[in-house]
Amino acid sequence: MDEFKCEVLIIGSGPAGLSAGIFCARVNRDVIILDGKELSALEKLKEIQNWPGEIDIKGKHLLKKFRDHVESYSENVRIIKGDVISLMLGMGVNMISTRTATITADVVIIAIGRGNRKEIIKGEESLLGFGVSYCPLRDHPLYKDKVVYMYGKDEEMLEEALILKESGCIVNVITDVGIEELPEKVNEVKQADIEVIENMEVIEAVANDEGIIQKIICKSTKPGSVENEEITEFELNCLFILSHISSNSIFKKAGIELDDKGNIFVDEEQKTNLNGVYAAGDCTGGLFQVVFATAEGARAGLSACKYLRQLKKE
Amino acid sequence: MDEFKCEVLIIGSGPAGLSAGIFCARVNRDVIILDGKELSALEKLKEIQNWPGEIDIKGKHLLKKFRDHVESYSENVRIIKGDVISLMLGMGVNMISTRTATITADVVIIAIGRGNRKEIIKGEESLLGFGVSYCPLRDHPLYKDKVVYMYGKDEEMLEEALILKESGCIVNVITDVGIEELPEKVNEVKQADIEVIENMEVIEAVANDEGIIQKIICKSTKPGSVENEEITEFELNCLFILSHISSNSIFKKAGIELDDKGNIFVDEEQKTNLNGVYAAGDCTGGLFQVVFATAEGARAGLSACKYLRQLKKE
Repeated sequence: MDEFKCEVLIIGSGPAGLSAGIFCARVNRDVIILDGKELSALEKLKEIQNWPGEIDIKGKHLLKKFRDHVESYSENVRIIKGDVISLMLGMGVNMISTRTATITADVVIIAIGRGNRKEIIKGEESLLGFGVSYCPLRDHPLYKDKVVYMYGKDEEMLEEALILKESGCIVNVITDVGIEELPEKVNEVKQADIEVIENMEVIEAVANDEGIIQKIICKSTKPGSVENEEITEFELNCLFILSHISSNSIFKKAGIELDDKGNIFVDEEQKTNLNGVYAAGDCTGGLFQVVFATAEGARAGLSACKYLRQLKKE
Repeated sequence: MDEFKCEVLIIGSGPAGLSAGIFCARVNRDVIILDGKELSALEKLKEIQNWPGEIDIKGKHLLKKFRDHVESYSENVRIIKGDVISLMLGMGVNMISTRTATITADVVIIAIGRGNRKEIIKGEESLLGFGVSYCPLRDHPLYKDKVVYMYGKDEEMLEEALILKESGCIVNVITDVGIEELPEKVNEVKQADIEVIENMEVIEAVANDEGIIQKIICKSTKPGSVENEEITEFELNCLFILSHISSNSIFKKAGIELDDKGNIFVDEEQKTNLNGVYAAGDCTGGLFQVVFATAEGARAGLSACKYLRQLKKE
């Protein structure tokens, strides 16, 4: 078992974690970044068009730029492979274990992204980036004049459906609840000529010969109906999956407060409910844009360094 | 007099304005960006090291990347030269005039940066980027093991002085008030071996033969003292000027609420107190980092588009 000690431990090596690392390293803090097995969501993206300054860049190339940047502070930053398997937080000194190491840190920044999201639809993971997306606000310009389906069960999805419609996508909404559970926006969406299919579960995403999504297979969820066994198929160019599933549970067990969607609750300085523990990026919820994740990471880094100065003074 | 009409008018072409433009153009909004005479603060920076993904880039090159990005949406975005000389905001339709044009816009995003900052010290403007800086958190790594003076009058400056000390600068603080007006942090700063010079006004920054700052000339402000006429000089490598001067007054006259430092007051969606008017970037105060300005710009853009959808529905 390796033992490490540092001032700032950053859990996660996506845009938020790397940005936090840059801001801590710049003020000479001793930083460890824990690089988990799960790839950053950014890594998986074929292309990204809303990182200011890059008209069109592959996700993994942008991530590489962030990583090169933090690695340029080689005196201050160590990047260690590993996933958190147990942790003790908020006691002044924090203890974190992976399968091969124990890390002691004065301050911890959690930047684990949306976490190890469970596949809810067959074919979802293999088609991610090839017609399956979790982020309409980011990816919709790729599907102008194309058929997209949005799958989820909250009002926010309908708001985003309107955005996609306006930007020229042919938008359909599927929800496995009844539309009476989405009262506020549903009329507005229908007036905008967006078809809303209720009581329908997406069970499989099917690829064409080129490995790109071709159709989805759906099953009625209408309670007590014969339709319940009916299978429907829809041809499409993109499926946006918008359910909120989070793997923040290990942090919850360590005493971190989550909100009702399972996101880590932070204040305006990115502080969690525990002293010396900060969080940034997609694990705190929000709009899932890289520019917000990096800004949150920067703020968590600055706040963590401020906390450290207090700690060393005491 | 030219007349223009658009859905979104963005006042300012720095990082916040250009980022807002990218996010509005991506959803097919008709955008005008007003490009004022005053250069963006970013344009003036010799180098910037805290934009994630760029280890070391000239400010003007980073700004060019943002601008190229927004200009790639050529169908949706027009960039017009001009400074606002009068405006009528918050009436549903907003009217803005420059010396040569009138612009009517459904929604306005103010992103004017710290504005036309008045020179408060002789030599300040000519030495900006050559040893005079407004942003310690950004520029301090350039002055490791070098002598820096921080000039201002608030507690925030002392917090930043501690950061600079820790990152290896030789830090001095000058304030034209008495230190009894900065009670909270002053002992902590002194314990950290940072010299605090009180009751002293910086009146001139002087360059060496190479056009880089060499010394500052100061005058005592001690009330009713003979010292009042005394002139003191300090040799240094950098002067950080931290006074809060804002040129948001034209917007204040138009009904925009400012905070007690003269920054535009916004809520968490970047909305000002006026309907359909948003603000983002340095003009709202904050930490003056490019990564925050672009994130605020993105949020203002998304909020403005949400407002527009409401407006068109009514």
